[in-house]
Amino acid sequence: MARPLILVTNDDGITAPGIRHLISFAKEIGDVVVVAPDSPQSGMGHAITIDSTLHIEKLTIDKNAPDQSEYSCSGTPADCVKIALQEILDRKPDLCISGINHGSNASINVIYSGTMSAAIEAGIEGIPAIGFSLCDFSWDADFHPAKTHIQQIIKEALHHGIPKGVVLNVNIPKTQNIKGIKVARQAKGNWKEKFDKRTSPMGKDYYWLTGVFDLQDKGEDTDLWAIEHDYIAVVPTQFDLTAHHAIQQINSWELHA
Amino acid sequence: MARPLILVTNDDGITAPGIRHLISFAKEIGDVVVVAPDSPQSGMGHAITIDSTLHIEKLTIDKNAPDQSEYSCSGTPADCVKIALQEILDRKPDLCISGINHGSNASINVIYSGTMSAAIEAGIEGIPAIGFSLCDFSWDADFHPAKTHIQQIIKEALHHGIPKGVVLNVNIPKTQNIKGIKVARQAKGNWKEKFDKRTSPMGKDYYWLTGVFDLQDKGEDTDLWAIEHDYIAVVPTQFDLTAHHAIQQINSWELHA
Repeated sequence: MARPLILVTNDDGITAPGIRHLISFAKEIGDVVVVAPDSPQSGMGHAITIDSTLHIEKLTIDKNAPDQSEYSCSGTPADCVKIALQEILDRKPDLCISGINHGSNASINVIYSGTMSAAIEAGIEGIPAIGFSLCDFSWDADFHPAKTHIQQIIKEALHHGIPKGVVLNVNIPKTQNIKGIKVARQAKGNWKEKFDKRTSPMGKDYYWLTGVFDLQDKGEDTDLWAIEHDYIAVVPTQFDLTAHHAIQQINSWELHA
Repeated sequence: MARPLILVTNDDGITAPGIRHLISFAKEIGDVVVVAPDSPQSGMGHAITIDSTLHIEKLTIDKNAPDQSEYSCSGTPADCVKIALQEILDRKPDLCISGINHGSNASINVIYSGTMSAAIEAGIEGIPAIGFSLCDFSWDADFHPAKTHIQQIIKEALHHGIPKGVVLNVNIPKTQNIKGIKVARQAKGNWKEKFDKRTSPMGKDYYWLTGVFDLQDKGEDTDLWAIEHDYIAVVPTQFDLTAHHAIQQINSWELHA
């Protein structure tokens, strides 16, 4: 059987240690093509570039692997997937993987995540897709404890496929001793923002966005519970945002103007 | 009873005709505070500003309503909601409305929508929220046929509240003869991208993202069906992205590394 074709992207930029590790893990399983942003895109959510032009550049990042097919793109993670499918790849990839993100995309963070937006974009295009994130923001985070687990998830996704309309959001705890993998749901919680207000040298006020996470969910079936207990959390994530359960309730409103 | 406090934002920028109309419609129902981007933010998805500073500015847009409380913000629609709640408003608003977007946010477009990201951000913060979009991209689109319908939806949302974890995605057909309102689900479809490749005067290739929409859904309960038949589509939209129905299936995988 031919080796699977795996498209790799991320949101921290093509030179980030997280994607370099993901490429090396994936190369042991399939043929890898990399199309990733030329600069960090964290917090971009599902942004796409519609009012500006896009550039792509073929380049060699890893001098030890000059044959590795790699392209940087001036756009967002979602742009990278779109342009990879239309302009770079000769055939539809068997899998798209995004990450490894430097930092958590568990719970509500999935909404703001560039890493997951790339996976969702691939999912919309009918390609099995997985976003990987390590719960460690540091640039020299240790990705090795997760290696065999990440490879196992990739292999199983290639073997079984992923249900239509679903992509996987994989969050990895920061620990040397990963206990295993839990399939989980997105924990309910949100950021309690605090804006750090400062004054510029020119006397103009400006703000930095900061905040603390407020968990409103004691469930033991959530992604945050799994991570807290040293398990990798795998959340099946969908892009049909319809709240089907709420349709009847809204249908009870008086909607005649 | 005190008049309700309504926060108004959008993604086309604070001077766009769509938000000016929404403000005028909402002022007949409640006290309005406007916090909207200082420039167009279309296609920003759920982007937030984390690596840069934010600025807000109190200003008067409508010379006929100098007392109208309005602020422009240098950030994304989601930023506008966050900074409005933390730094501008004295109390939690009773409702957040976003739009009226110049262009459709039906079907898969909800994923890329800055208009809806603002509504979702408010929903995450526990505030009833609605995004309004008119299926007409032109700057001089006619928002008046929808006026009474938009006001009715606002009144009903204030009266009943919106189910927890749900925001409303309202898309309005481009017609003088709106037949009514349908509560609908997100139609399944996606964009078939086509990149328009060009060469710069300096000889460098670049791309413009274009595409055509591919509808894969013949259902008569979808937002696109409603719009096509001159009804306003109201889709209850959620930000718990867990594909609960897929958890068991992923749990059948061999996940031991």
